Amino acid sequence: MISTVTMKWNGNFLELIDQRKLPSVEEYVRCTNSDCVAQAIKDMIVRGAPAIGASAAFGYVLGAVENKEHLTIEAMERVKEKLASTRPTAVNLFWALERMHSKFLSEVDNEEREDVLRILNEEAERIANEDVEVNKQMGMYGQELLPKSSTVITHCNAGALATVDYGTALGVIRAAVERGKTVHAYVDETRPYLQGARLTAWELLKLGVDTTLICDNMAGWVMKTRKVDAVIVGADRIAANGDTANKIGTYSLALLAKKHGVKFYVVAPVSTIDTDISNGIDIPIEERSHTEVTEIHGFRIAPDGVGVYNPAFDVTDAKLIDAIITERGVLKYPYVESIAKVVK
Amino acid sequence: MISTVTMKWNGNFLELIDQRKLPSVEEYVRCTNSDCVAQAIKDMIVRGAPAIGASAAFGYVLGAVENKEHLTIEAMERVKEKLASTRPTAVNLFWALERMHSKFLSEVDNEEREDVLRILNEEAERIANEDVEVNKQMGMYGQELLPKSSTVITHCNAGALATVDYGTALGVIRAAVERGKTVHAYVDETRPYLQGARLTAWELLKLGVDTTLICDNMAGWVMKTRKVDAVIVGADRIAANGDTANKIGTYSLALLAKKHGVKFYVVAPVSTIDTDISNGIDIPIEERSHTEVTEIHGFRIAPDGVGVYNPAFDVTDAKLIDAIITERGVLKYPYVESIAKVVK
Repeated sequence: MISTVTMKWNGNFLELIDQRKLPSVEEYVRCTNSDCVAQAIKDMIVRGAPAIGASAAFGYVLGAVENKEHLTIEAMERVKEKLASTRPTAVNLFWALERMHSKFLSEVDNEEREDVLRILNEEAERIANEDVEVNKQMGMYGQELLPKSSTVITHCNAGALATVDYGTALGVIRAAVERGKTVHAYVDETRPYLQGARLTAWELLKLGVDTTLICDNMAGWVMKTRKVDAVIVGADRIAANGDTANKIGTYSLALLAKKHGVKFYVVAPVSTIDTDISNGIDIPIEERSHTEVTEIHGFRIAPDGVGVYNPAFDVTDAKLIDAIITERGVLKYPYVESIAKVVK
Repeated sequence: MISTVTMKWNGNFLELIDQRKLPSVEEYVRCTNSDCVAQAIKDMIVRGAPAIGASAAFGYVLGAVENKEHLTIEAMERVKEKLASTRPTAVNLFWALERMHSKFLSEVDNEEREDVLRILNEEAERIANEDVEVNKQMGMYGQELLPKSSTVITHCNAGALATVDYGTALGVIRAAVERGKTVHAYVDETRPYLQGARLTAWELLKLGVDTTLICDNMAGWVMKTRKVDAVIVGADRIAANGDTANKIGTYSLALLAKKHGVKFYVVAPVSTIDTDISNGIDIPIEERSHTEVTEIHGFRIAPDGVGVYNPAFDVTDAKLIDAIITERGVLKYPYVESIAKVVK
């Protein structure tokens, strides 16, 4: 059993809050099979690297239930592939699926099919529960980096909604507030999908944080004209050298932060680190539909026939990152070394 | 008589294309009095520093017609003040009104009221016609800075719609294309008002320019991953030292351009230079309505109760600007000297 705002799991189905409709509508989509979970990830009903990972794990369990009569390696590889092919950049998706699949492989000779299903369910729930614990741990480490009264900028949504619960970057803000610190958060609206305006602002207001919404192109001017202590963001994939893929716009924010003497922090669980990739150049960057840019809630904002470039992520050079906050501690540059120490 | 896409003037009324409705609807708003012109500037039916200047000049003429029976200095000062109080940042507004008002002052003793009205009308039409000529001149100078095949990024709308006709920054692209050069333009959508997506993309497509629309937060990543020759923007006010107020986001673009070895060009008529202001700190920055950020075409995209910061402009340090292209030539740093030479 898992029950958070982001997702509810009871062993039979997964309910995901429809993040496309927030904040105006709070509605859950119920998935009773793995196809539905795959589609929900693709359509961004659920988004955020850790939330995608946990959802995929539950999708894998549903896939096992679907194949219960012929629970073969081939069948479960197909389930894994289907869920893995939904989005290319965030590595937590592949990490969670690999973890589920190795658990399955270790149980494949177990003739008690119900036992295998139970074990897979336990593993998926473990992934989800661990995510919440890991976020709280990161929040604890991260808040130590914030002054007692601080002003931060955050981009996209790295909150409870991007995870099973608590949040990564917003988890740090939350942990600071829980410890009596005062945080004023500037929230980039984060075009084209508006995760900042729709999700982060909504979450921060619920947490009672003083929140100011800005357009993405205002962040540099805010850094120049107002006192900003730190930019705090999540991550979708971190290479072995610390280069970090995150929501498009993060790279520019990091450059602007460096220029203005503002600290730039990435908050992500160790599962976001992909040591198979030595540096950021090799991280695949998803390009999404043109209509995300040319339409807002079905309203056309650009002329017909215009070309569009819509990368969902960019890669921030490790050198621009002052710290990567993980559940195993605060990593510092050179990340090749600090990452190697925490990733076994 | 003036007749362009942006505005139509026949001596009795001013018609302005409603830039809030483009590109989906092409509709003109007819103003038969100075109040209507003031409101149209305030509501951004007409926007863009040079277009605002010319519109205000015609508004001044309408104000003179309204006061024809008592054409006093006091009456025309009230007209001037009303039009001047519409928007605080773009200096062309004040420049055009001052020019109209000095013409009036030089004619105030003329007892032939019809003559005075005719002379004011001629002066306003001269301002409008000069604007087109000045833009073509800037285009000619500016295009020389672009390689035969070039890739540029532009922000907001500095096209025909921001002027009486032809455009400032887009005038440079247009002049390059007219001379057989190939230009690929990345257009920042320019939140919150979406002038890039709605107006610039529309204009460039009409000019046959290869146009790619991006969100504002993608420009840095485009500079890093694709070959970009120049960022080309307009200006709303340039201080005596070259510091330039332009649409919010311009300052960040300039920093990103510097970082990536991309040229950064400002294109603006000499009337945009305000030598009464020694540097950018003193340029007043307009803050606009929160709903520009929280709503898109009436659709709410942020939670109720969220704070918003919505500066319409920012100031780019002169040192970040590789050239200021005016109708009197291409100015280079240090601008204190190059500006002093062209401003008499």
